[in-house]
Amino acid sequence: MAHQDESRAEAAELPAHVTPRRVVIVGGGFAGLFAARALRRAPVAVTLLDRRSHHLFQPLLYQCAAGILSEGQIAQPLRAVLRRHHNVSCLLAEATDVDAGARVVHARRPDGSELALPYDDLIVAVGMRQSYFGHDEFAEHAPGMKTLNDALDIRRRLYRAFEMAETAADPEERRQWLTFALVGGGPTGVELAGQIREIAGHTLDREFRTINPAEARVLLFEGSDEVLGAFGRPLTQRAARTLESLGVELRLGTRVTGVDAHGLDVLDRDGTTTRFAARTVLWTAGVEAPPIAAALARATGAQTDRAGRIAVQPDLTLPGHPEIRVTGDVMGLDRLPGLAEVAMQTGAYAGRHVRHSVEGRKKKPRPFRYLDLGSAAYICRGRAVVKVGRLHLSGFLGWLVWLLIHLAFLTGFRSRIGAVLSWSVVFASGARRERAFGTPEGPAAGKG
Amino acid sequence: MAHQDESRAEAAELPAHVTPRRVVIVGGGFAGLFAARALRRAPVAVTLLDRRSHHLFQPLLYQCAAGILSEGQIAQPLRAVLRRHHNVSCLLAEATDVDAGARVVHARRPDGSELALPYDDLIVAVGMRQSYFGHDEFAEHAPGMKTLNDALDIRRRLYRAFEMAETAADPEERRQWLTFALVGGGPTGVELAGQIREIAGHTLDREFRTINPAEARVLLFEGSDEVLGAFGRPLTQRAARTLESLGVELRLGTRVTGVDAHGLDVLDRDGTTTRFAARTVLWTAGVEAPPIAAALARATGAQTDRAGRIAVQPDLTLPGHPEIRVTGDVMGLDRLPGLAEVAMQTGAYAGRHVRHSVEGRKKKPRPFRYLDLGSAAYICRGRAVVKVGRLHLSGFLGWLVWLLIHLAFLTGFRSRIGAVLSWSVVFASGARRERAFGTPEGPAAGKG
Repeated sequence: MAHQDESRAEAAELPAHVTPRRVVIVGGGFAGLFAARALRRAPVAVTLLDRRSHHLFQPLLYQCAAGILSEGQIAQPLRAVLRRHHNVSCLLAEATDVDAGARVVHARRPDGSELALPYDDLIVAVGMRQSYFGHDEFAEHAPGMKTLNDALDIRRRLYRAFEMAETAADPEERRQWLTFALVGGGPTGVELAGQIREIAGHTLDREFRTINPAEARVLLFEGSDEVLGAFGRPLTQRAARTLESLGVELRLGTRVTGVDAHGLDVLDRDGTTTRFAARTVLWTAGVEAPPIAAALARATGAQTDRAGRIAVQPDLTLPGHPEIRVTGDVMGLDRLPGLAEVAMQTGAYAGRHVRHSVEGRKKKPRPFRYLDLGSAAYICRGRAVVKVGRLHLSGFLGWLVWLLIHLAFLTGFRSRIGAVLSWSVVFASGARRERAFGTPEGPAAGKG
Repeated sequence: MAHQDESRAEAAELPAHVTPRRVVIVGGGFAGLFAARALRRAPVAVTLLDRRSHHLFQPLLYQCAAGILSEGQIAQPLRAVLRRHHNVSCLLAEATDVDAGARVVHARRPDGSELALPYDDLIVAVGMRQSYFGHDEFAEHAPGMKTLNDALDIRRRLYRAFEMAETAADPEERRQWLTFALVGGGPTGVELAGQIREIAGHTLDREFRTINPAEARVLLFEGSDEVLGAFGRPLTQRAARTLESLGVELRLGTRVTGVDAHGLDVLDRDGTTTRFAARTVLWTAGVEAPPIAAALARATGAQTDRAGRIAVQPDLTLPGHPEIRVTGDVMGLDRLPGLAEVAMQTGAYAGRHVRHSVEGRKKKPRPFRYLDLGSAAYICRGRAVVKVGRLHLSGFLGWLVWLLIHLAFLTGFRSRIGAVLSWSVVFASGARRERAFGTPEGPAAGKG
């Protein structure tokens, strides 16, 4: 195919008669991007495949959903991010299968036509998607929070709920529109809960004539006994107190057994099922591997865990397939958490070792070791929890550290400036710029 | 209904036992917004109805489509814009019918339920929608440019076309993805044509490995003999020269008779039909009134023109209905052009005269007279045409005046700062921030 010939030609530095080694990276999230970057100066021809044309700064996706940041502030085209990486060719296509014997990735273009991409080295960085634990029918009424589409859908649902409450003639209907249920007490659920309370109490202040947006109820359902479990005590307790002081109602130790357009059914530890009426339900409760992970496991005999994560060796390769490396959230090593930081480190590790092997280093690579730089979750303006090793921060200090971490990792100078401006305005006045939403039914016509 | 009681209560200044006059404004575009603003200090209860919750700065919609500005930079929630207008209540609902005898507007909420809104004065400002001249089946393959949804759809089609060209194995398919056809040579068609050539030649520079985006062909089809006909000579000729120097291929005196996913059929004045292969077709050729305009005409006996515009008396009221005023694009007075400026002036005129009548002024209002402040169309960076009375500007000077006009009318200080920043970056480096697009099929999962 033309693009491969071209990308080979681009992978300069080698004499023209040498065919550079072909590295296919599947997925342009943090893991795939950091793998491509680690290969920048390697004499290889990299093909980076993603079903979307953008790299998404996932840790701030909830701010796009909440109307603080625009799509472009958290998502940049992969080919723009990598434009100076002359040995990288970005392709918009979804990987559908791997032929591990012939060393070919099969992919589908958006129009349904097929691509076959031969590789010498394969780096799998496909991430995880939202899981409804076997209840995919919940998705219609309870969108997840993994993609840009998800964020725009949630933005529309959040702001439309207040609009619907304003025109509801029936008080019970109005209460239902003003009730927001979040399923999942991890960072995304906590962040969204905080955002909705801030929108209700701060952003929408004095805009409505019938309803009082500040009366909006936010219910957070979590299966375990604490929110932000990964942060450990005392941060879990401090986060719970902050959420409660914000007005978020925590329902811990609960499991959601049904979701429809008018609310959800919740089972508690006593075995009692309670119905909660809520016209907006958002789902952040679990993740599962996309189908390509199962296809890879079938093709290579690799093991997967219950969520579909692929078991790897300590150097991130698959048993019997030293040419295949699995990175990021979909990699099942040491039960590492699904954090951007893990994805970056595994991606960079995989890219580096491909480079070493191309450069002919004989030494066996050291096993991958995750360097825990800490994790952070934003709760509301001026409040965040941060854990760095034994250091636990919360409240305003936690928020300052959260701010610095996120600015450091945001891609590009312009995105940083834009985010600082948006954050300053929302912090000071509550005003959010990105509140406009289209109609869900697609192109429509006329005003009024 | 609750919201009406509330909005009456809000319309302060009157003693509690006096019921303020109820003014219903249908449509929150420039006409509706300026009508509401003109009523700010009047002792009336205003209900502003729109099927979308935002006011759209239509003149810059093409910049949202082209990836320069975000949705939030050109669309603000109506209730945020009017938050300090305490006598205005904004409702998200679509007007479906008018009972001119009972003086009630019937409307539909997004969930399909009905609202009935009694009025003492009605201001109709519903705008126009895209017309396919009886060929609504073209819409699927050739989106219009009237709504935020349209702009996001066009953004996705534009940037995806280059992605598809990059992975096309067949040279003919690749050429088709790199061919963009625009139907309609008015300001929107011209602006989009310029944007696509700039994206191809400037923004995407050095991002692709297989294709050369600068080779993208842009075809502009127009039925008359000139582009930007409303500007008159010599500006139409200068605009045509500028477009041709940008690489836009003008096909004047043509009529599009068929559109499908792979191209369009074009009839020229000789009666010859030519097929043009193009995977992206955008439609800006005509407008028609939305269904509520016909419903109003039926209810009042008002006349409509071929496009459905409602004929009004010189004071913008309907014959026999001094309580109904029609403003903006849907008003058929003196064949005024469909410009933001006309909408603003007619909206403000209608609002002002409702206020005068509430205040008990006996004098018959002077007929509406449009004060032509000029019009402007952007062609590419550093090039615009501007007509102010007998003054004709083009090139860089025209562009500077275009810039000042648009900054002056953009709503809000923050939008202005944001637009200036975005324009500076795109002018200097070609970089566009808002290039990310979701998948059209809605929420989807996993990367790669």
